[in-house]
Amino acid sequence: MKIKIKRQQLLNAINIAGRAVSVKTTMPILECLLITATEGGVKMMANDMELAIETTVPADSCVVMEPGVIAVDAKLFGDIVRKIALNEDSEILITSDGSLVEIKGEKSLFRIQEKDPDQFPELPMVNENKYINISEFTLKDIIKDTIFSIAANDSNKMMTGELFEVKDGMLKVVSLDGHRISVRNTALNGEYENFKAIIPGKTLNEISKILPGDAEKTVSIFFDENYASFKFGSTVMATRLIDGEYFKIDAMLSSDYETKIIVNKREFLDAIEQSTILIRETDKKPLVLKIAENSLNMKVNSLMGSLDAVIGIEKDGNDLMIAFNPKFLLDALRVIDEETVSLYMTNSKAPCFIKDDEGKFIYLILPVNFNPAAY
Amino acid sequence: MKIKIKRQQLLNAINIAGRAVSVKTTMPILECLLITATEGGVKMMANDMELAIETTVPADSCVVMEPGVIAVDAKLFGDIVRKIALNEDSEILITSDGSLVEIKGEKSLFRIQEKDPDQFPELPMVNENKYINISEFTLKDIIKDTIFSIAANDSNKMMTGELFEVKDGMLKVVSLDGHRISVRNTALNGEYENFKAIIPGKTLNEISKILPGDAEKTVSIFFDENYASFKFGSTVMATRLIDGEYFKIDAMLSSDYETKIIVNKREFLDAIEQSTILIRETDKKPLVLKIAENSLNMKVNSLMGSLDAVIGIEKDGNDLMIAFNPKFLLDALRVIDEETVSLYMTNSKAPCFIKDDEGKFIYLILPVNFNPAAY
Repeated sequence: MKIKIKRQQLLNAINIAGRAVSVKTTMPILECLLITATEGGVKMMANDMELAIETTVPADSCVVMEPGVIAVDAKLFGDIVRKIALNEDSEILITSDGSLVEIKGEKSLFRIQEKDPDQFPELPMVNENKYINISEFTLKDIIKDTIFSIAANDSNKMMTGELFEVKDGMLKVVSLDGHRISVRNTALNGEYENFKAIIPGKTLNEISKILPGDAEKTVSIFFDENYASFKFGSTVMATRLIDGEYFKIDAMLSSDYETKIIVNKREFLDAIEQSTILIRETDKKPLVLKIAENSLNMKVNSLMGSLDAVIGIEKDGNDLMIAFNPKFLLDALRVIDEETVSLYMTNSKAPCFIKDDEGKFIYLILPVNFNPAAY
Repeated sequence: MKIKIKRQQLLNAINIAGRAVSVKTTMPILECLLITATEGGVKMMANDMELAIETTVPADSCVVMEPGVIAVDAKLFGDIVRKIALNEDSEILITSDGSLVEIKGEKSLFRIQEKDPDQFPELPMVNENKYINISEFTLKDIIKDTIFSIAANDSNKMMTGELFEVKDGMLKVVSLDGHRISVRNTALNGEYENFKAIIPGKTLNEISKILPGDAEKTVSIFFDENYASFKFGSTVMATRLIDGEYFKIDAMLSSDYETKIIVNKREFLDAIEQSTILIRETDKKPLVLKIAENSLNMKVNSLMGSLDAVIGIEKDGNDLMIAFNPKFLLDALRVIDEETVSLYMTNSKAPCFIKDDEGKFIYLILPVNFNPAAY
């Protein structure tokens, strides 16, 4: 293989594909990038067996003098390309003799070992019958609005992913971790077959890092039994799906309530952020909300000190005292782009809902126990 | 104590004094800030027994309604002030009853425990007979140019500090770690008594973080037997000095050489940075310099791969092969503000000097052993 390639475009490709390189693995080949040069251009691929990313360097940014395939350690190769030529329009010459790769910049020549490209796992082929098209911007937004409430650890595999459900022209995305549920509904443009899939949270995190987020550009998402693939620009990401039937959540999303409040989001968020100063993860002190006619009192009593904060609200229904882990309120409020938010509650034991009137999002948060006499 | 104080100025004072708060200590009082309100204004102090910092909140930024002294946990107090009132011109009301401090913002009231202010160690008094004045900018520059070559660990206490020597109107600052020596000379404005002191590296690091670095503003540094103090703006930093006689380095700074080269700093630095990609701290492979008539060849051979880099140079004297730990070259080159640098060498076993013609800086770097046949 022999190619000449623009440094900046090569680096972009490394940065994109590199997100699927394994960091901890017993298979050294998964720490590699696979570089395939054909007359059509140069492709870069990484695959950690959960997620595979393939991206193509634009044809006007490379010259393929001799086609071929090589596998190189991703970190080492990336470090070299990053440092070998520092001008945006520098060109790099990459030559392989089957055992050593030469990487040549203006003043420097690196030689590194190749790995066996035949050992490299292939990009999974995803049947393209079922799919949706969605704008880059919207997909990124949906992920941001839901990804925080997946479960961090693997004890329940299903909770580490998000449900993507297409039904009658709507995309519903759901994540939950046992303490809370996030639901994000999006109307799709176009007619699509109904289906469901559970996409690993790690995949969604990586996609949202790579996606430029352009509102005018489309991502196509293809789904089959075991894999989904995301196509955008010159990049394909193929991910394994999580197997099984997702949690039934519809019954939990009842719309009854005894107390509804409308709060200024900024004021509410500021007070909750203040409360976290006094609450260590380990001592599990709650943030207590005292809802009265026109005011919301927020109280914390912990070993570190106490907080009393008051903000004005609009209230509909009963007065109520209810307590939360403030982190769960914060996570939801931080992604809501509204000036005011509405909270719906029934009693101090029943879930609280933060939702909008249009049905775009629902955040269900379970309250925590507390001793009302102490507040 | 009862004071009303502008949030932004309070935060500045916390950030400055906070740099002398102990992070790991068996004396909880050292994790505190001491706040002293008098009719003259509000002072904030922290003291980790090595370094003490006292800073004053400008009188136009606070109202002292009731003088007093309190000690509060620095981290907790800082977190509260940072989050309690988010506008630049917000005011915070701080009230103490001798056991609890109330911190009141617009919508929130925090209560935290006070610590006993009588336990707080006093700011060391430094005799002001011996001193120098120097601009903030110059002091910051001197520290940056030398601090990297102090020793990181305590096995030789003297190496963790820097020599500040005033002699005949010149300030000489020296740091060394057994592999290299950095010397920075500065002509002082004014007449000062000759003296020497060894200032802890940690103190210098903290000063350079706090110092605004204004070329028009002066820092006064006072020295006595055991302490030095730095005064600038409304801040005083008092530091314990390192005891003992500093290393005699003058004999090592011989000006003989057999080979002198002049290199473009950027090109040299780029090649050295490339070399570090292939060199892990643990395998200790050297960067080999092959100096010939008009060219400098830089070579690395390691388990990870090989590098050949070539740059043009001006040479005076003998050809030479010599090897270095590239990190030591990097550290020195990164702080030198010149387009070209001059290196002076004798042979592959003798130290290399990087220095300027004006005698402002000298960086001595010891070479490392290598096998010339392998390069």
